[in-house]
Order: sequence, then structure tokens, then C-alpha cells
Amino acid sequence: MTAAPKNAYEKLKERFEKIINMENALGILSKDAELFMPKNSNGDRTRQMVALAEVAHALIKAPEVEQWLDEAEKNKNALSAEDRRNLHLMRREWVNRTALSEELVAEIARVELEGRDIHVALRKTGDWAKIKDWYAHAFDIKRAVGLAKKDKLGVASVYEALLDDFSPDLSESSVAQNFEMLEKMLPTLIGEAAKRKKSLPDPIPLTGPFPSEQQAELCRRLVTALGFDFAKGRLDLVDGGASCGGSSGDVRFTTNCSNEASFIKAVYSAIHEGGHALYEQNTPEKWRYQLAGKAMGMALHESQSRIMQVQACQTKEFFQFLEKLAREVFNRPDDPALSAENLERLVNKAEPSLIRIAADEVTYPAHIILRCKLEKALIEGTLAIDDLPKAWNDGMTKLLGITPTDAAQGCMQDVHWPTGAIGYFPAYTLGDMGAAQFFAAACKDKPEIKSEIANGNFTPLREWLRDNVHSKGSLLTTDELFTAATGEPLNAKYYLDHLSERYLGKPRADNTLLKKPDGPVKNPTAR
Amino acid sequence: MTAAPKNAYEKLKERFEKIINMENALGILSKDAELFMPKNSNGDRTRQMVALAEVAHALIKAPEVEQWLDEAEKNKNALSAEDRRNLHLMRREWVNRTALSEELVAEIARVELEGRDIHVALRKTGDWAKIKDWYAHAFDIKRAVGLAKKDKLGVASVYEALLDDFSPDLSESSVAQNFEMLEKMLPTLIGEAAKRKKSLPDPIPLTGPFPSEQQAELCRRLVTALGFDFAKGRLDLVDGGASCGGSSGDVRFTTNCSNEASFIKAVYSAIHEGGHALYEQNTPEKWRYQLAGKAMGMALHESQSRIMQVQACQTKEFFQFLEKLAREVFNRPDDPALSAENLERLVNKAEPSLIRIAADEVTYPAHIILRCKLEKALIEGTLAIDDLPKAWNDGMTKLLGITPTDAAQGCMQDVHWPTGAIGYFPAYTLGDMGAAQFFAAACKDKPEIKSEIANGNFTPLREWLRDNVHSKGSLLTTDELFTAATGEPLNAKYYLDHLSERYLGKPRADNTLLKKPDGPVKNPTAR
Repeated sequence: MTAAPKNAYEKLKERFEKIINMENALGILSKDAELFMPKNSNGDRTRQMVALAEVAHALIKAPEVEQWLDEAEKNKNALSAEDRRNLHLMRREWVNRTALSEELVAEIARVELEGRDIHVALRKTGDWAKIKDWYAHAFDIKRAVGLAKKDKLGVASVYEALLDDFSPDLSESSVAQNFEMLEKMLPTLIGEAAKRKKSLPDPIPLTGPFPSEQQAELCRRLVTALGFDFAKGRLDLVDGGASCGGSSGDVRFTTNCSNEASFIKAVYSAIHEGGHALYEQNTPEKWRYQLAGKAMGMALHESQSRIMQVQACQTKEFFQFLEKLAREVFNRPDDPALSAENLERLVNKAEPSLIRIAADEVTYPAHIILRCKLEKALIEGTLAIDDLPKAWNDGMTKLLGITPTDAAQGCMQDVHWPTGAIGYFPAYTLGDMGAAQFFAAACKDKPEIKSEIANGNFTPLREWLRDNVHSKGSLLTTDELFTAATGEPLNAKYYLDHLSERYLGKPRADNTLLKKPDGPVKNPTAR
Repeated sequence: MTAAPKNAYEKLKERFEKIINMENALGILSKDAELFMPKNSNGDRTRQMVALAEVAHALIKAPEVEQWLDEAEKNKNALSAEDRRNLHLMRREWVNRTALSEELVAEIARVELEGRDIHVALRKTGDWAKIKDWYAHAFDIKRAVGLAKKDKLGVASVYEALLDDFSPDLSESSVAQNFEMLEKMLPTLIGEAAKRKKSLPDPIPLTGPFPSEQQAELCRRLVTALGFDFAKGRLDLVDGGASCGGSSGDVRFTTNCSNEASFIKAVYSAIHEGGHALYEQNTPEKWRYQLAGKAMGMALHESQSRIMQVQACQTKEFFQFLEKLAREVFNRPDDPALSAENLERLVNKAEPSLIRIAADEVTYPAHIILRCKLEKALIEGTLAIDDLPKAWNDGMTKLLGITPTDAAQGCMQDVHWPTGAIGYFPAYTLGDMGAAQFFAAACKDKPEIKSEIANGNFTPLREWLRDNVHSKGSLLTTDELFTAATGEPLNAKYYLDHLSERYLGKPRADNTLLKKPDGPVKNPTAR
């Protein structure tokens, strides 16, 4: 029996499946390097990973791929809608891989690697004079990247081309429109929330030790309740930052249980990464090894971590479940600090602070909005590097009412810019917006979601997410996905509603200060 | 500054480095699959590994490689001796990868995979009638492989082409000559050793439990003493068989400590795999990512595991060290079973048995010699599959004086033939021969080797092995390596001397029964 000759699209599918399998292998090798690799084996591992990345890159850049793309696009009317979407994603990936010169690709890699070392070396002392040329270089390189990609991707601006790298399918104008709405409302909300917080009794502080092993057990029981399938993934402990990686059929995520004085961070890191992990585990089986089956970009991914962390697991109902589990696992039936009410007060903070990664959910978006405005201005050349520290401090004062006293607490705190991750920040707040919008829609569709969480039953929420988000992979555009799942494109109003309810204790409709603007954002993610 | 254009040999080096890095990645992925992978993630992993193997294969088969080989060989006089050897190994690898049709390659893979399942399903009941057609098929396929490779590799026979796959550089005639010598002497030696064993007092049996964790600690301390560098490798515990893999810069080996009734198997598996691991860790840095820097084939590798396991760690001196460690780790200062003399009696057995993997070092070669003769005859067609069980049983009776009562205890016991691993068995005994020869030479060069082992100091032995074997990688032929290290090519007499000394308690020279044949084997590994 001889198989029929493959057409161009079938050849592309075969090629991309190979590439995705190689990227999945890289995901496992990378996690092994983090968790299991002996300390002096980095040389071997780096070579392996570079070899795999180079070979995967060559498999896309090979001349036959462009021919197949051209031919498949000519005949795309014969394809199903899903296959057409898959073909579109192949073309986009090809453009992303071929738009840049080899020199620029090499320089991006260098900025990423060396930038991390430079950041680590200079951040603590906040030595801006020493680092600013490196910042300028990183922005120059990324401006060149955006310029090279803009027309080929058919996006509206250089900055949008950079956004696209992390969160495809999101237009700069929709981001700007939503962020403007937030920027208008946030300062009032932050002020009101901080005031209200002060009027409430202080929480009882936790008294450790909470042994690491018991924290790990608590984390495992929580993510099992969320629905993580341990037969197709692992949760490991790390001393550093938590993360999620591996491959969709073998998801590896981590948390850090080393601080025995408190289990809060361990638990919320596990839930956050568990949200990422659930998304990966539930991408569509049928498209598992094609681009259409992959999770969408960073913004969607962040919406799935934050919907678990913030929307589901900072509710009154969740704290009832957490109280029960924590009392059991730590064997503290009478510790008053472990009451649901006290845990809620410990976790749900609303207090301006200078450092993004320590910020609570009310003040976090202000950090992001500031960074987004500044990086856009730096890319567009309307802000000079020399003026960054002042612009940063002015922005913090305006948005959060507090002012850094040095660059370590200010514009040098994040690793993103010195490593060239410009256009990444918006994903965090877009993720929070998406999480609020999805959660509102899910609770409308399944009113039992919150009350079931009190019993540790996440099934209604998980099934809603699986059906409306996870199982869509990349088969829909961001717009299509939000509209199908929630009735409208991404819209910041749900996030404002949520913050008002949780931190001011009333629906936004009852709160004159936070009432405007309303109405749908016009066609916000289309381009 | 523009680099000079690369010549053909430099291009080959670049290509093979990429392929070796991909194979190293496969080594890590394979170990991760064994040790850390969730139980239902096999689908993802298999796809990753198949993709990497296919891509690596394509990188060798690409037409430019043959052109580069031709061109580099034309100009090989400009290369150093080491580079010429490296080029020779590239050509051999290329021949091995390109000699077979895609259909044959696919059928080999199928025999390997399905053969394992068939073996597991039918071995226990010893249902020869059901499995014999599969055996015939496996031998047919491998005969076709040998035929396809014989002339291209320039070897003397079809069987030699199969040998070459596992232990390159060994001629069939040298193997036959050495095995003949063993075959002539072994039955007498086995009989004498068993007789002498019976005249000695029985060892005191171990009384467990020896907790798994303490066994693991003992294994770690032992392989640390051997010189394994834990900063560039790991020792993990498994429930199944021990093994060694990973990459040279990140060696992953395992042992099984699950039987708490005895620590003997755990310890000797760790030492055996530790010997493999030491070889990998000490291959030449300069050639690390080229074929010339890789460990030689299975026979040499086995010599390095067996020199540790059998030659170094079954000596009186080692048992002194083992007594000290075991008493400490298990906290049994007075257990009479842990005395050096008793441990030696427990470990150094010499008793004919039917199953190869349970055989001691005296009887083991008889198992191998039988298999080697039979597989050669099956490949050459001088033995029919239907006659295999009888030929097996006759051989066992002649060599070991015992006769299997069914095929489960006879010709169906091993996984090798049903999975197509034909030509593999000789490596075990060639390894034992090599180990004895290397150890004799090492002790002659450094007379302190044995006495230092009593103190747990393996440095003299390790340094001799590093200088004379490990650091040579594949830079020398087997002949050259043995001659440089020991003064002559591989010769079974050292193994016979060793067995006579250890199991008959006297040098072979004093033992009229075991005195002949003497003298060097003529040009035994050349071809």
C-alpha cells in the first residue's frame, strides 16, 4: 500500500510537529537543568540546548518551508477553518523566525544572557550611571527588532511588533484604551482601598515554623483540588522563584516552601503556577503537536494563572477551604491565625509599595501601566534614557502616591528591560483583566462556582475554563476567544468591578467615584 | 574580522558536534523518562525522542556530508594523527547510518520494540513453539543488516559486521581465538573452583533489614571513593535494573536498594555502573564533542565496569574497606556477617547455574561463549532455529555440567535475541578479559594499588585508568589501546590467571590442569 503524496499543508504539519517536539524536549531539558542537573554540568546542557534550538530554527528557515507556505496559502480555501488558522500561525511563526538578520538574532541572545548578569551585579546598589548605557543598548536592539518585524507582521507600530512577541493578537490601541481606563480609576481606588483597609482590625500574624514538608503537602493537596493531573506532570520544590514549564503532556511546575515562617507565598505560588499548568494540560489533544494546539501567548497564560490565584483563591469561600486544609496539614486545630477571616486579611492587602513583585492585586496594575508607558516612549524615542529615572519617579508619585529614593527601588528593579524583554510587562495586567472577565462570565454561567470552592470543589470552574479557554488552544484569535467565552472582547471594566467589590466592599455601580467610564471598549483587540 | 572559510573536515567537525550534542540530549531525556517522568507522559516523550533521533539521522545522511567526507579524505595527510582517526570514525558512523535501507531501519526498530513485549509475555512459561518464529525473524533481519554492512565496513564476515555494531574494532577471529582458549580451560576451572568452594566453611548469611536509605548512603560513599564526581553526575535509585546514561559531562547512573534483606546487589550494581560512569567522566575534554572523544564500544565499556566490580572490589583488600564502611553505615559494629572474610565468602561464589544474569564471575564466561557460538551459527545458517533448544542444552551440559529442563531456563532467558541484539553478548566476556588484563598491568605499574584499596583509596587505580584508558576516548583502535596500556593486544590468559588465583588459590603457573595454552594471541584484534 502506497500512501498518497503529501500536499504542501500536510508537509508543513509534519515539519511543525517535528519542531514542536524539539521545543517540548527543550522544555524538559530546561526544567531538568533547574531541578536535577548536577551543579557543574551546565556546559554540556547549554551545548545540547543551543544545538536543539539551532536545528529547530534551521527546520523553519529551510527554503522548502516558504514554498510550502506559499502553495498552501494558494489552496487554503480547501482547508477547514481550524486548518486555515493553523496555517496562519505557521506563517506568523515563519515571519518571526526569518524577519531578523543572523547578527540581530545573535545580539538578542547576548543581551538576554549578559543583561541578566549586569542586572544582578548592579541592581542592588542602584548604580544608574553604570547601567544606563546598557539599558539604551537593549532598547536600541529591540527597536531594531520591532522595525524589522513591523511590516512583515502587518502590525500598526514598532511597539506593537514587540508586544506581539509575547502576547500575539493584541493591538497596541486596545491595550492603550484599556490601560487608560485603569489609569483613570486606579489612583482613587487605591486610595479608597488603603483607607478602608486601615479601618479594619489588623490580621493576627502567622507564627511559624510551618515545616517545609508540610507546606509542600498543603500545596500538593491544593493543586490536586484545582484539578492538576499528577500522572501527566510534576510539582517540585525550588529555593528560588516558582515557574511552570516542561511540555503540555508533561507539565513541570514549582513552588518555594523554604520560608518556614509563613506558608502564604508557597501556597499562592503553587496556585499561580498551577493555573498555568492546568491550561497546558488541557490544550486540545487533537492539535497537541501543532501551533493551533498550543496555549496562546503570555497575556492569556497569565489570565489562567491569575484566575486561580486571584479570582478563585482570594475569595471568602476559598479561605474557608484553606482554613480546613491548613489546620489539618499543620495540625493546628486552634491557631487563631488560621481562621478563614484572618487568612483573608493576611492575603488580601491593598497598600502602595515601591516594588512590583511585592505588590498586591490592587496596586499591581499601577506598576505595569507605568512600565508600559515608559517602555513605549523609550522605543518611540519620545523619552530619552537619561530622563528615565525622573519619569519613573514622577509616575510612581502620580499613580501610587509614593516616590522611590533611588534607582534600585525605581527603574532598575526589574530584569525585563536589561535583558531586552520589552513589550512583556502589559501581559501581567492584561492577564488580570482577562481573569476578572472570565471569572465573571464563568460565575454567571455556573452560579455554584464560588460556593463549591468553599468545599474544595473546583470542578465547575475547571470545566468552564476547559470548555471556554483551555481546549481552544490557539484555534481562535484573542478577540474571538473572549467574545465566545464572555460575550465581548477584553474589557478592563470587569477588573475594576472586581477590585471595587473585593476592596471597597461594594459593586462599582454603587460607587460614584469608580462609576465611569462604562460601556464596551470599541473593537479593542482587532487590528 | 571575517573568519576564514571552513574546510571540509572543519565542516564535518561542526556537523558531528551538533549530532553528538543531540545524542547527549537524548541521553538526558531518556534518563529523565526513567527517573522523573510522570507515569502517563510517555506519549510526549516518545515523540520528542523520535524527533531528535530522526533529525540527528538526517544531519548525517544529508548529501553534503558525503561530499565533505570525500574531500576531507583526499586531504587527510594535512591532518594530525588524532584528526585522521576522528575522520575515520566519521566515515564509519556515516557508513553505519547510510548502509541500510529505510525499510530495514524501520524493521530493526520494530523488532527492538515489539521483541521486548513478546519476550516479556512468553519468557516465563518458556513457550518455545510460540516464540521460535519471532526468533527466526530477528535473526533474518540481523543477517540482512550484516550482509548490507559487511563490504561497506570492510569486515571479514556477516557476523563481524554485527559484532562491530556493539564493539567496533574487534575482529571475529580474535574473539574466536580468545574464546577458544577460555572454552578449553573453563570446564576444568569451574569444576575445581566448585570443589574448592565446597571444602570451605559456608558463609554466615546476612540478616536484614538493611534499610534502603542506608544502603544508598553506602553506595554513595563507595562511588565517591572510586572517584565519581557528583558535581558532574548523579546516582539515583530505581526499582528495576541498574544502568548508566546521560552525557559525559552529566553522567546519570542508578542502583537498586529496594531489597532490605541484603545490600550486596545494591553495592555491586553501584560499583559496576560507577565503573561505566568513571569512564564517561574521564573521556578527553579536548575531544568531548567529537566521535574521537567518545568512549569506545561495549567491550571496552564493560572492561571499565568490570575492572571496578570484579577486579578491584572483589579483592581481599576491598572487603576490608567494605567491612569498615558497612559497619559504620548500618551501625552494626559486632555483626559477624559483616567481617571482611565473611563478605568475601558471600560475594566470591563459583557455582554453575542456569541463568546468565545470576551467574558468578567464574561461570559467567561459559554462558557467553555458548551464546556466541550459537548466534554465530544461526547467522551463518549452520544451525536451524528448530535445533536451538537442543544445541543450547547440549552446550550447557558440556560447559557447565548442568542441563535446563525448559526453554525458560534455557534459550529463552535473555532479551537480546528477540530484540535483535545479536552480536552483543561477546562484549560481556571481552570486557572481563580486558578488565583482568588492565588490572594486571595497572598493579605491575603501581604495586600499591591493592593495598591502597584496603584504605578506601582508589586514586592509584583511577589515575592509571584515566591515563591509559579513559583519556584515550576513541583516539586509538582497540589493539593500539591495549598494546599501549598493557604491552600486548587483548589476551584471555590474564583472565584465566586471575580466576585461577582467586578461585583456586594459586597462580595458573602452579596448576598443571590450567597451564596451557600460553603465549600471546597472534594479532588478535587487527583486521
